[in-house]
Amino acid sequence: MDNSESLGINSSKAGDHRAIGIACRLDSPAALKIVQIITDFLLERKEKIFFETRISSKFIRHFAKNLGDMTSSNTKFLISVGGDGTVLRVVQNLSKKDPPPILGVNLGSVGFLDESESDPDALKADLEKIFKGEYSLEKAVRLGTTIGNHKLPLALNEVLIISSKPSKVLYANIKIDGSYFTSSYLDGLIISTHIGSTAYALSAGGCLLDPRLNGLEIVPLNPFAGTGVFRPLIVPSFAEIEINLQRPRLNGLVIVDGQTEYKVSPQVKIRIRCSENNIYFIRFKEQVSGYFDKVRNKILFSRKLADDSLEN
Amino acid sequence: MDNSESLGINSSKAGDHRAIGIACRLDSPAALKIVQIITDFLLERKEKIFFETRISSKFIRHFAKNLGDMTSSNTKFLISVGGDGTVLRVVQNLSKKDPPPILGVNLGSVGFLDESESDPDALKADLEKIFKGEYSLEKAVRLGTTIGNHKLPLALNEVLIISSKPSKVLYANIKIDGSYFTSSYLDGLIISTHIGSTAYALSAGGCLLDPRLNGLEIVPLNPFAGTGVFRPLIVPSFAEIEINLQRPRLNGLVIVDGQTEYKVSPQVKIRIRCSENNIYFIRFKEQVSGYFDKVRNKILFSRKLADDSLEN
Amino acid sequence: MDNSESLGINSSKAGDHRAIGIACRLDSPAALKIVQIITDFLLERKEKIFFETRISSKFIRHFAKNLGDMTSSNTKFLISVGGDGTVLRVVQNLSKKDPPPILGVNLGSVGFLDESESDPDALKADLEKIFKGEYSLEKAVRLGTTIGNHKLPLALNEVLIISSKPSKVLYANIKIDGSYFTSSYLDGLIISTHIGSTAYALSAGGCLLDPRLNGLEIVPLNPFAGTGVFRPLIVPSFAEIEINLQRPRLNGLVIVDGQTEYKVSPQVKIRIRCSENNIYFIRFKEQVSGYFDKVRNKILFSRKLADDSLEN
Amino acid sequence: MDNSESLGINSSKAGDHRAIGIACRLDSPAALKIVQIITDFLLERKEKIFFETRISSKFIRHFAKNLGDMTSSNTKFLISVGGDGTVLRVVQNLSKKDPPPILGVNLGSVGFLDESESDPDALKADLEKIFKGEYSLEKAVRLGTTIGNHKLPLALNEVLIISSKPSKVLYANIKIDGSYFTSSYLDGLIISTHIGSTAYALSAGGCLLDPRLNGLEIVPLNPFAGTGVFRPLIVPSFAEIEINLQRPRLNGLVIVDGQTEYKVSPQVKIRIRCSENNIYFIRFKEQVSGYFDKVRNKILFSRKLADDSLEN
Repeated sequence: MDNSESLGINSSKAGDHRAIGIACRLDSPAALKIVQIITDFLLERKEKIFFETRISSKFIRHFAKNLGDMTSSNTKFLISVGGDGTVLRVVQNLSKKDPPPILGVNLGSVGFLDESESDPDALKADLEKIFKGEYSLEKAVRLGTTIGNHKLPLALNEVLIISSKPSKVLYANIKIDGSYFTSSYLDGLIISTHIGSTAYALSAGGCLLDPRLNGLEIVPLNPFAGTGVFRPLIVPSFAEIEINLQRPRLNGLVIVDGQTEYKVSPQVKIRIRCSENNIYFIRFKEQVSGYFDKVRNKILFSRKLADDSLEN
Repeated sequence: MDNSESLGINSSKAGDHRAIGIACRLDSPAALKIVQIITDFLLERKEKIFFETRISSKFIRHFAKNLGDMTSSNTKFLISVGGDGTVLRVVQNLSKKDPPPILGVNLGSVGFLDESESDPDALKADLEKIFKGEYSLEKAVRLGTTIGNHKLPLALNEVLIISSKPSKVLYANIKIDGSYFTSSYLDGLIISTHIGSTAYALSAGGCLLDPRLNGLEIVPLNPFAGTGVFRPLIVPSFAEIEINLQRPRLNGLVIVDGQTEYKVSPQVKIRIRCSENNIYFIRFKEQVSGYFDKVRNKILFSRKLADDSLEN
Repeated sequence: MDNSESLGINSSKAGDHRAIGIACRLDSPAALKIVQIITDFLLERKEKIFFETRISSKFIRHFAKNLGDMTSSNTKFLISVGGDGTVLRVVQNLSKKDPPPILGVNLGSVGFLDESESDPDALKADLEKIFKGEYSLEKAVRLGTTIGNHKLPLALNEVLIISSKPSKVLYANIKIDGSYFTSSYLDGLIISTHIGSTAYALSAGGCLLDPRLNGLEIVPLNPFAGTGVFRPLIVPSFAEIEINLQRPRLNGLVIVDGQTEYKVSPQVKIRIRCSENNIYFIRFKEQVSGYFDKVRNKILFSRKLADDSLEN
Repeated sequence: MDNSESLGINSSKAGDHRAIGIACRLDSPAALKIVQIITDFLLERKEKIFFETRISSKFIRHFAKNLGDMTSSNTKFLISVGGDGTVLRVVQNLSKKDPPPILGVNLGSVGFLDESESDPDALKADLEKIFKGEYSLEKAVRLGTTIGNHKLPLALNEVLIISSKPSKVLYANIKIDGSYFTSSYLDGLIISTHIGSTAYALSAGGCLLDPRLNGLEIVPLNPFAGTGVFRPLIVPSFAEIEINLQRPRLNGLVIVDGQTEYKVSPQVKIRIRCSENNIYFIRFKEQVSGYFDKVRNKILFSRKLADDSLEN
């Protein structure tokens, strides 16, 4: 039931010569500046650094390494500087097996996947916590998708299936573990993890999922009101979801974490289920309250009225 | 307040030599068969017929005419055989000014825009009603859209604005009659007429609009939950709606009645307002109750429980 | 189309001996303190004051007057100190015909109906504007309800119809201008004015109505998903809405503006339509942009992400 | 993960002298007639019968027994004749520990909790299946509620918390396992089991829960749009949900399965969590597909358009 685990990042451990990876968005000078600050801080501590290849040319003296080559064998942890989009790109490009845990650093965006803010002092304090072992690792499940026999990258947030023509609705048939659930005319379908339940799935009318719930969410995108009702469905995380697009001559697109598009032809089975290859995020807060704090502060924005303001 | 008017289709009037237009979907043998039945019926009555050009080759002996050349000067009324999609295509291709009134014939689909069902006897009875003057005309307003200085075809149902990249949300800024309403991250926006309020706008969470209401509906498509609330807004039909897409390097697509796509660049003003060029539909039922009957039978599907079934 | 009018409040006009009314919530010391500040300010200007009777004992030297006796013949305008609840109470207790215009003063609540904030200097500046004629009057329509032959007070926000037993759903039948719309199992129904469209109707899933739209909104409360769909319906403001509760032995409650409850028996007709007795609110801002500013700042809370935060 | 179990109802087992219980709604002659048919059928089979006390006077020659005294020690299974309301009443009145499994017989209502329809031949065939052991038992979790130190009956569908005054919204504070989730102004809260996710929780905007998901759903009733967003939350079934009503002088009502009301004062803790005392339903279909069939046929009403009807 507890998704938090400790993988033992402890750089004071004698003989831990693994590097610390750094990934960053390219189009933000502010992000690159933070990478410089992190780099200076880590070098002073005699840490070894891997820059993801595409940013390495911006910095002197350090090893470039492809994200796909960073594993927990050679990388203690990976710092992702940017926002949720950067984390999603990084996760999609890391090796499926044995990826290093991730510390997300947020630059003024929603930053739901990030744990640290970009203020230099706070960020350095967070890194110190990691070196002291004062953190936990949150396990994040990911969704594996196959289109026919073709395997797609794993999804951290969601798998999105939409029409290839924005003016034509799909007619999708949905089975759960082989049992027919429903068919619907709609713009698309979102299959979301609990982490993704605060992202696109929520915008489309989905529910919030407690991080401890072993469940996935299926959310319809604008189902056609004239041909039945289609409400979000929560299934157990061991379930296999099978989707068939049924309108002849209308292809679909499958988009994994908003990163990459794959075409799917009518009648080709799309199968989605949880992968066994998890990702781990570094967290400094208790899992449940940390999650609710984020949801409340970044999504719900609940506010109290003045004490007596609902008077009569 | 009354949108029903009579334009005086009365073929028994001496000297009314105008034709009756027929448009049809091409991909349905059933639809073409109905066209043949209508044609035989009209010829027996010595009516003149115009086939829209693209179907004329399927029939012998009759005039082909482009939809854009059929006007109320030469065409008493136009029969659209198919479903809502056919009506939308026909309306978009008729001349803007002075189009003939339309009788929609529904072939087993939703057929919200259609008045007649495709059963031959019922259909002939409906045509007889028209010749006897036993019908009314429902005025349908349409939406005019300009992108910068470029004018788009008029919309009967809705103007849809979406991202040109399905994985990237728009950031749209909305003004009503020059007053700033709101900005939002979202998949898109629907600007709908009252007729369109039962179509895509409804699937996206909009309200139903009474046909007598002089109003338009603005419905957001999956607004991003983390950056504020965006609920459908109903504005008067005289309002001008101005939309600006603001994310640099992310184009939008504007789609009119699901028919045609137009690209729109960031910061180019999209302005939408009711046109003065209306379309008229032939109706046999009273406007308000006819509308509610359709809504109830085709969208709401309300059903009563057994008398005593909410017991306890 | 323009709901703004000027009724000519101009206290510098020679011979205008009408008083200024003051109403206030009783349970808030802060509100009573503001009344004192307003009173001192008005007395210094030699204005005559009417206190609503229930607060008059809290102040010395001034006339008490029942709200129902304040009319535009004896009262230039009425200041309501509290929040939306106070305005709703005041409006319900004023005389139906010829009530004075209202200036709402907000005390830290939502204050959607209020125009002034409670900061003393800002409030005095607002009062000066009124004396100089620098304001407009926004016309607010109200809903008249009859249960059988019994007339209820007029509603500024909404008429709510709910089950008298919270654990039993109603089965309601709805007609618009005599045409059957639908029937539904539900917790209740809200019939809302455009002003009410930002209040309870919005919480229940309704749309926002532009203040210039001549329309009313019918919003179902939790319609039972298993017996059909029921979406909010916008009807023209001239429409008569008739509701019949049909479950035998289950009474309903009709609640006007959250103020007072009336019992209604099954099969007794509830009829709701706009009254000709309007209320006027003092406004300092342009109608449309003032409304959108309120909606955005008090309901939508839209916020922009950092420029580059939706990166990839 | 499998909620289906077999408790071994097998009346052909030598020496199984346990009775078969029958409960029924009182206000339906049709229901009582079905009880007579069932009774005749069972007597012919030499089965012993228990009538719930309140209906026993309607029948001759048989033992009356209080629902609370029927346990699996003396009752093989219990037949509930009526609809969902009857099942909810029966479940609430059975003994908490060791209740007999239930076969619901539906009389023309939604009947989501029922397995058999009321057609006499089909019903007899279903009873034969039970005697042959051709059935499974679906485990249904129930929610235990404490108000302060007072324990409420267990809930099969949902616990509803609403304002004691329909015109006054609650301000509720919600914690999950001691972690603060959010606070909201709202009409009420629904805490629902997966079984209840197709009932009131769905009408209020909740999601559907797969029967194999170990989860509960928290659904807000009309949260006030002006003070933040509140979306349904799915928590694991081991979670404790704690609710505090915070508006002074405004009591709440807690309603268990729509059956009984309990008053709750502000600041008194309401705690809800899954009980270990389960109820078992007799099922003839496979759990997952049986559930989806019900959802589709009784709630979603999805329908396919004519093959070519979404043409262009």
